[in-house]
Amino acid sequence: MDLIIKNGTIATATDTYVADIGIKDGKIAVIGKDLQFAGAEVVDATGKYVLPGGIDAHTHLEMPFGGTVSSDDYFAGTRAAACGGVTTVFDFVIQRKGQGIIEAVQGRRALCAPKAAIDYAFHVALTDMTDAVIKEFPAAADYGVPSFKLFMVYKKEGLMMDDAALITALEKGKEHGISISVHAENPDAIDLLINRFLAEGKTSAKYHYESRPEWVESEADIRAIHWAKSLDAPLYIVHLANKEGMDEVTRAHDEGFTIYAETCPQYLHFTKEVYDRPDGRNFVCSPPMKGQASQDALWAGIKRGDIATVATDHCPFLSTEKDWGKDNFTKIPNGCMGTENLYPFMFSEGFKKRGLSINRVVELVSTNPAKIFGCFPQKGTIAVGSDADIAIFDPDKKVTITQDLMHSDCDYTIWEGFEVEGYPVMTISRGRKVFENGVFLGEKGWGKFVKRRAKKGAKL
Amino acid sequence: MDLIIKNGTIATATDTYVADIGIKDGKIAVIGKDLQFAGAEVVDATGKYVLPGGIDAHTHLEMPFGGTVSSDDYFAGTRAAACGGVTTVFDFVIQRKGQGIIEAVQGRRALCAPKAAIDYAFHVALTDMTDAVIKEFPAAADYGVPSFKLFMVYKKEGLMMDDAALITALEKGKEHGISISVHAENPDAIDLLINRFLAEGKTSAKYHYESRPEWVESEADIRAIHWAKSLDAPLYIVHLANKEGMDEVTRAHDEGFTIYAETCPQYLHFTKEVYDRPDGRNFVCSPPMKGQASQDALWAGIKRGDIATVATDHCPFLSTEKDWGKDNFTKIPNGCMGTENLYPFMFSEGFKKRGLSINRVVELVSTNPAKIFGCFPQKGTIAVGSDADIAIFDPDKKVTITQDLMHSDCDYTIWEGFEVEGYPVMTISRGRKVFENGVFLGEKGWGKFVKRRAKKGAKL
Amino acid sequence: MDLIIKNGTIATATDTYVADIGIKDGKIAVIGKDLQFAGAEVVDATGKYVLPGGIDAHTHLEMPFGGTVSSDDYFAGTRAAACGGVTTVFDFVIQRKGQGIIEAVQGRRALCAPKAAIDYAFHVALTDMTDAVIKEFPAAADYGVPSFKLFMVYKKEGLMMDDAALITALEKGKEHGISISVHAENPDAIDLLINRFLAEGKTSAKYHYESRPEWVESEADIRAIHWAKSLDAPLYIVHLANKEGMDEVTRAHDEGFTIYAETCPQYLHFTKEVYDRPDGRNFVCSPPMKGQASQDALWAGIKRGDIATVATDHCPFLSTEKDWGKDNFTKIPNGCMGTENLYPFMFSEGFKKRGLSINRVVELVSTNPAKIFGCFPQKGTIAVGSDADIAIFDPDKKVTITQDLMHSDCDYTIWEGFEVEGYPVMTISRGRKVFENGVFLGEKGWGKFVKRRAKKGAKL
Amino acid sequence: MDLIIKNGTIATATDTYVADIGIKDGKIAVIGKDLQFAGAEVVDATGKYVLPGGIDAHTHLEMPFGGTVSSDDYFAGTRAAACGGVTTVFDFVIQRKGQGIIEAVQGRRALCAPKAAIDYAFHVALTDMTDAVIKEFPAAADYGVPSFKLFMVYKKEGLMMDDAALITALEKGKEHGISISVHAENPDAIDLLINRFLAEGKTSAKYHYESRPEWVESEADIRAIHWAKSLDAPLYIVHLANKEGMDEVTRAHDEGFTIYAETCPQYLHFTKEVYDRPDGRNFVCSPPMKGQASQDALWAGIKRGDIATVATDHCPFLSTEKDWGKDNFTKIPNGCMGTENLYPFMFSEGFKKRGLSINRVVELVSTNPAKIFGCFPQKGTIAVGSDADIAIFDPDKKVTITQDLMHSDCDYTIWEGFEVEGYPVMTISRGRKVFENGVFLGEKGWGKFVKRRAKKGAKL
Repeated sequence: MDLIIKNGTIATATDTYVADIGIKDGKIAVIGKDLQFAGAEVVDATGKYVLPGGIDAHTHLEMPFGGTVSSDDYFAGTRAAACGGVTTVFDFVIQRKGQGIIEAVQGRRALCAPKAAIDYAFHVALTDMTDAVIKEFPAAADYGVPSFKLFMVYKKEGLMMDDAALITALEKGKEHGISISVHAENPDAIDLLINRFLAEGKTSAKYHYESRPEWVESEADIRAIHWAKSLDAPLYIVHLANKEGMDEVTRAHDEGFTIYAETCPQYLHFTKEVYDRPDGRNFVCSPPMKGQASQDALWAGIKRGDIATVATDHCPFLSTEKDWGKDNFTKIPNGCMGTENLYPFMFSEGFKKRGLSINRVVELVSTNPAKIFGCFPQKGTIAVGSDADIAIFDPDKKVTITQDLMHSDCDYTIWEGFEVEGYPVMTISRGRKVFENGVFLGEKGWGKFVKRRAKKGAKL
Repeated sequence: MDLIIKNGTIATATDTYVADIGIKDGKIAVIGKDLQFAGAEVVDATGKYVLPGGIDAHTHLEMPFGGTVSSDDYFAGTRAAACGGVTTVFDFVIQRKGQGIIEAVQGRRALCAPKAAIDYAFHVALTDMTDAVIKEFPAAADYGVPSFKLFMVYKKEGLMMDDAALITALEKGKEHGISISVHAENPDAIDLLINRFLAEGKTSAKYHYESRPEWVESEADIRAIHWAKSLDAPLYIVHLANKEGMDEVTRAHDEGFTIYAETCPQYLHFTKEVYDRPDGRNFVCSPPMKGQASQDALWAGIKRGDIATVATDHCPFLSTEKDWGKDNFTKIPNGCMGTENLYPFMFSEGFKKRGLSINRVVELVSTNPAKIFGCFPQKGTIAVGSDADIAIFDPDKKVTITQDLMHSDCDYTIWEGFEVEGYPVMTISRGRKVFENGVFLGEKGWGKFVKRRAKKGAKL
Repeated sequence: MDLIIKNGTIATATDTYVADIGIKDGKIAVIGKDLQFAGAEVVDATGKYVLPGGIDAHTHLEMPFGGTVSSDDYFAGTRAAACGGVTTVFDFVIQRKGQGIIEAVQGRRALCAPKAAIDYAFHVALTDMTDAVIKEFPAAADYGVPSFKLFMVYKKEGLMMDDAALITALEKGKEHGISISVHAENPDAIDLLINRFLAEGKTSAKYHYESRPEWVESEADIRAIHWAKSLDAPLYIVHLANKEGMDEVTRAHDEGFTIYAETCPQYLHFTKEVYDRPDGRNFVCSPPMKGQASQDALWAGIKRGDIATVATDHCPFLSTEKDWGKDNFTKIPNGCMGTENLYPFMFSEGFKKRGLSINRVVELVSTNPAKIFGCFPQKGTIAVGSDADIAIFDPDKKVTITQDLMHSDCDYTIWEGFEVEGYPVMTISRGRKVFENGVFLGEKGWGKFVKRRAKKGAKL
Repeated sequence: MDLIIKNGTIATATDTYVADIGIKDGKIAVIGKDLQFAGAEVVDATGKYVLPGGIDAHTHLEMPFGGTVSSDDYFAGTRAAACGGVTTVFDFVIQRKGQGIIEAVQGRRALCAPKAAIDYAFHVALTDMTDAVIKEFPAAADYGVPSFKLFMVYKKEGLMMDDAALITALEKGKEHGISISVHAENPDAIDLLINRFLAEGKTSAKYHYESRPEWVESEADIRAIHWAKSLDAPLYIVHLANKEGMDEVTRAHDEGFTIYAETCPQYLHFTKEVYDRPDGRNFVCSPPMKGQASQDALWAGIKRGDIATVATDHCPFLSTEKDWGKDNFTKIPNGCMGTENLYPFMFSEGFKKRGLSINRVVELVSTNPAKIFGCFPQKGTIAVGSDADIAIFDPDKKVTITQDLMHSDCDYTIWEGFEVEGYPVMTISRGRKVFENGVFLGEKGWGKFVKRRAKKGAKL
């Protein structure tokens, strides 16, 4: 045995109990009471929660966007994740026009491999659904990336996939057990509103929200869900941020359809009023934060089980880059940071303050992403045989988030001043400590590519 | 270590993995790969599912009713349960008028203790809600029986509790963390219809259903849910058997309320057409089996998560007793058998045939009853520290149910001829084999009273 | 021709146009432009609205209740009605135990006939559903009273009909084309709360509301609608006063069922806060006024068409009688006044202030009651051949209601100080002026019994 | 007085009564009993229904489409309408790119004026929403055409308006009281399916339906309703033909929004199975006929009030033109006939067979179109002062529709062999008989342009 975690309160999506965990060769080898193995390093977790490492199912590291590149490269981003208890990130590969799916993944994989401090997987954002690309679906699944995203928005930017492409993706995704995700916002409505505001000289960050209000997002949610229901195909909605979309998800669940909804900490904590702040542009992401009714609806969706996952859409830009949009909100690079805050946020706000069980927090941040995206039980739980990816939380540790404490390369954080109760004191990636008591202990290139499985005919 | 279960596929409500389980002093002591302990008995579970023992949250053993006593006493009933992979039964104590709650429990507990072959707990059916009884709520919870049921029906029989009593129970239950259940049917409607049918000479078993059709059950479901919602109090509905009630449960879930719905294998398998059979009276239970639309709705509720538990309402009567109602359906003692069929039914029909995951089956039959009724993780899971209550299923074993194979004292079974794929080959109760390959290995008095906890302010 | 109403703006539930109306022998004989008939009296209605006379479908005149008799006898009540533009009242006969339906009506009819200033009909509140009474249904319909009400409440008072009676009434009502109404509140819940409040010394008028809050009324609405839907039988709900019941009516409409909902001006104007006033007891009626959300829901129901009628439940008691409950809200005779305020309220609040068309106001206050209760087109419209029952409103006349202006025998009005825009300047009953510019012109005994028809197989 | 209609059963959307109608100068001058005027022509309507003339709110006469022109020019189309009891048609002007709204109308008006046999109005289908066009909205309303339609479909044909245009139209329509209609189908989905079927050699008429199934229409319904709700703007949906769209309309009504739904006789009578007939191509129109569930939903929507109007989308093409698509369904000109069948269909199928009141039929076919589109009470009712547009139905006359009996210029009818009970025996247009007992009596050029009013701040 290499490492023993002693006497912690182990929690999975179902169980909560006190025991020791023995780790060998990067995997959980044994769980029991009073484990003793000669030579094994021992971590005393008495009074601590021992949780499956978090899975941030939505990151954009080192991503070219808005005329620059997101400010956390694969090292900085995975380092930050590790320091927040996250042990796997799912990063997005954006297919370029004419590119094959695997070709697109290979490029990013080569970039990521030497830098990643924790394990990683890739979703592919399809932007060119040629017949060749459609034919490549099963090969891409076999390659280990059985999850694609389509943008319903960014029409002018050339990223938008139309309804015909979305319908085709849902059909083929269902056939091959590949998860289809959407970024749901309506591009025509957004462009109409942007043009109107710019023409009226309304250029502050506030008009980022005003040009993408609740109803502009919900239309696309409703439409995507409609196609999925019509085809009886599973659908995953990334970064759901509005009440009406949430309601439609619930309605689809009532009707028996498989619609997974992801939301993000920023939508669960901030509201559109942040855009009135002097640093409002730092909060610009798409979809934008919404009104209180939407935030309440998202928490309610979490409580009653209609939200499947919480991930971050981590995509930071430097404040100097955000400043490009000082006088024109359309020039602000879209994206916010959060991968280091994900697990502490949900532990503190969900478990400590809002009455979620610790099991439900684990389910949202770790188990469900692994199950939905095809890498369970390698990831997403604490069970014998699983990767020894573990986050140990001190439930009583109070931390006020400041940029200094964070491990991102970005020069500010939207979470500045936010107080959490409960914080990771150790993160273990495949049996190796990569974070302890505020200090990053990992290294570039430690992280491995997680090859995932398609989910043809998956059991409920 | 006393016993090792080697190499089985362990499934909990979340996890599925292959490992060994080490049991000591009746508890799960260790889970790991290739466990070896000198002197421990070894069970080879290769290729088998190793599941948490079933919890039948709804039995009526040795129960005086309809002029007789249900035909399985505490020994026969728990023996039958054990032989079906069930390791805990929750039996109902019917409070007599004037009786205190604990007094009522103590009487039955004394009767049960020397006979029980597996562990047991008690729900108390309150029939006399005096001020003294209301005051006794917290003491009863402390005693270990924090779960009461109210009959909304059986008015003439003197068991019915009116809306004032139900409201009071929900209020006080919420206050003290006590689960409140209802048997939901409308007594006035039933009596109206019974009187009408008898007056018209319609006396066959079919009129048992006709006098308690879907809308007679659903009215009471809707009313009970209304009170629970109005008071924001949790509610548990036993043996839900109709579509409209199912829909109302879903609606309440959408609104964020805590409504637990239990259904039973008989409602998931039989429909009202059984009452047209020559032996229709053997299927008489209350609520009766319903139409296909209701059965479909219950399965849909299971699939989308709106059904919390499956239990049996096991309450067999001898065929000679059922015959009392040959010429008058109102003379048939109400009740059917099923505790030995519960887990195989759900394994075969849910997991094998309808696409439920094995985890969802475990959740319905074991984990959720334990969590809802306050004895998790002592019961309801396979985790270090939990009671070693385990059911080992051979997933490929095909069995055709016949009365001969069953371990009840009743002289027939409604499940005669029913074929299942997947069957228990061993049941372990607190580390002791009580069933193996068709043979009961337990003994009277082995079973212990499970003292449960109230759930004040429970986390979601 | 006896009377010409010239140049008014005639409005029915559909039409609005300017024309003259010629009346002969109490009926509308001709409608045209520039009518001229020698010898006919001429009323100039230029700039005025000429509307079908109001039908107050819910009054309790001279009704023994709460240890006294409502303070408006058949003369005073119909006089007040006439002075508010109402030309027909539907008064309630309460069947006594053992009484036949027609027998019960005949007693009240004899009392009413010599006093009524306008036409009248009777609903019968059944309190004793014997087999003989059930058999009398068709005869009662033939007699002209095809509309019965059942109290779901007033259990202690001996008026409550249980679910069996309600089911039977709905079945038989459907069979014979008889309208079945319910007063929907839950008696057990009310008695529980009353006993609790009295035991706690909470005896002010406010506790009248607190013992009959929204959820106590809505339970009975939902239950009554459930029975009606289950039997596919029409149902009329009197004095609906809560949001959840309103929502259930809408849901039933969506499902295609015939559920008529009546509300009253007091629920559309006052909220439960009136019970905090020093004269709170004067507002005590059952159901009580509710919260703002319920009031908003009722107006929304009116706007979208889910409320069928607005009537008053006119049942005044003298302030000295209301004082009986100064120190105990259960001693306050239940009932409020309003028949004189009905039409002005709806004209002012509905048409002038809330954007209802004048046609919708006419439909609610006149056409729908006539259609639903079987006396259309004799009553309820302005069409050739219909009774010349007409209310002429000056749309610009502003009136502040005071007890002095009212024509009831009660010594106060809950509407004191209420300002309306638009007021009747003339009321015509079967061609005879019974009110003009504030002055009652009618006489005792002018009113006739309106014999209504059952509605078997009525077209939608 | 010019004409007296004696003793008919006059029905409006509210009233049904027997009286005489006196007509002078094309308007209804008087309604009364036993009217006698020297010199007036007398029509005996004893035993007949005297109804407001029908308004066919949706026709495409003489319309260039699909490489030809619809086969009924303004004379033939209005002649056919007149012979079916219709006295006003609302024809569609298709704006050409670059054209102004009024300019577009004037062109068609000039074409129509010398040919129309009955009155007519125009909706304008906007296909080019330039700033100039948006600015022209109020002028167009003042000109008398306050109703625009947007195609959400026909993308390749250059007619489709995108979501930005639709949002703008709804906003500006609301501001100026102009009705905004949509033809709701999703173009991307249709093109995807068409391409797929053609590639697979599936070219028969059946694939017209298969490429525009229920879910392709409903998506656009849902989207249009979403925009309307988001902007709280009224919306009119033409030719609604599917259940899910119907359900969404109902949901919007429940939420208090103003969504008008129109359906057509072809959707209420035929189902998609017609496309399997040898002459299936003759039934090709867009949207196509759907499945039985949709037809049932439309009738249910009519019964409960969620359908506002029934119109025809009359757009016939010769059988030789339909033949163009014998081997390729995309070559079939889209459109069916029906303006002569509208009123008889609804009278027979709605009133006689399905239990609608005659009033509800009148409301759907006459009153509501007039109210919604701003020409009530000039059109849409029988009231003093209204245009004397009247359809007299013999309720007992049975007619089997054949092409011979029809007055269209098309060489077949989809209604061939359809039997109706109740048929027009006379149609009167502004006081002039234009049809009697099967014979057209009108003349080209009699019809007048109906100048309609915008509906700013209309009362409910």
